[in-house]
Amino acid sequence: MPLRALRAKLAREMPVTQSLGIRVVGRQDGGLVLEAPLAANINHTGTAFAGSLNAAATLAGWGTVWLLLRERGIRAHVVLQDSTVHYVRPVTGDFTARCLAPDDHAVARLVDALARRGRGRIELHAVVSDRDGDAVTYRGRYVALRESKGGS
Amino acid sequence: MPLRALRAKLAREMPVTQSLGIRVVGRQDGGLVLEAPLAANINHTGTAFAGSLNAAATLAGWGTVWLLLRERGIRAHVVLQDSTVHYVRPVTGDFTARCLAPDDHAVARLVDALARRGRGRIELHAVVSDRDGDAVTYRGRYVALRESKGGS
Repeated sequence: MPLRALRAKLAREMPVTQSLGIRVVGRQDGGLVLEAPLAANINHTGTAFAGSLNAAATLAGWGTVWLLLRERGIRAHVVLQDSTVHYVRPVTGDFTARCLAPDDHAVARLVDALARRGRGRIELHAVVSDRDGDAVTYRGRYVALRESKGGS
Repeated sequence: MPLRALRAKLAREMPVTQSLGIRVVGRQDGGLVLEAPLAANINHTGTAFAGSLNAAATLAGWGTVWLLLRERGIRAHVVLQDSTVHYVRPVTGDFTARCLAPDDHAVARLVDALARRGRGRIELHAVVSDRDGDAVTYRGRYVALRESKGGS
């Protein structure tokens, strides 16, 4: 159910996911997995555009925070504060962006901060891979802001 | 002429620039300036998606390197090695991504390394702004690889 809600939210509120062909695949170890085609994201060297790879990783992290809060019944806006990306090698085909499992203590701190101050942070790591393995590493710091009611 | 060649290259080889509505505005102090509309890049909070802001900054830096090499008669592939982005505040309207003037010494080192080893690096900084001023800061390290002939 949360995955279905996430897909609907992306389709409704984030047109970029459609223009870049980014789709929700599912979850792995608590982290969200997305996929995207090379064709819509190709660059001048015939590999995937760095900005598209970053966008997919950014969304994998964002969706992971959104899902973990929603599963705990917490409605919050989630935004990215900062991120660092290493493009280790070119991505030569369709690719996946996979957020690594969030640390349990970090999730507990986020939930606690949201409950006490209405605002919390969490750092997540993601990798982008193609058929040849991992190609891009990503670190992003997300901020969650509790909503008083409805929305998310 | 180089700007016209850059526009043609982006239109021909990078479909993402069209799907995100990213356009070349011109140059300022030697750095490339791009613009993009909020509508194609909007997120769940009604502001610009972080991935789109990063993509525009990434391209502003990339285009700056491409132009400065081309103006020196150097044909090279330019790719992004790593980048860090700080999303200082939300972008609430159409936005521009502006690469800051490359340091003269850094450009000289890049050109020298390309001539001697066929490969060089340069670090660039960019900012993304909306009508209210700067909102995002970006640092990217680009690698240029000399081409033996044709292309770019």
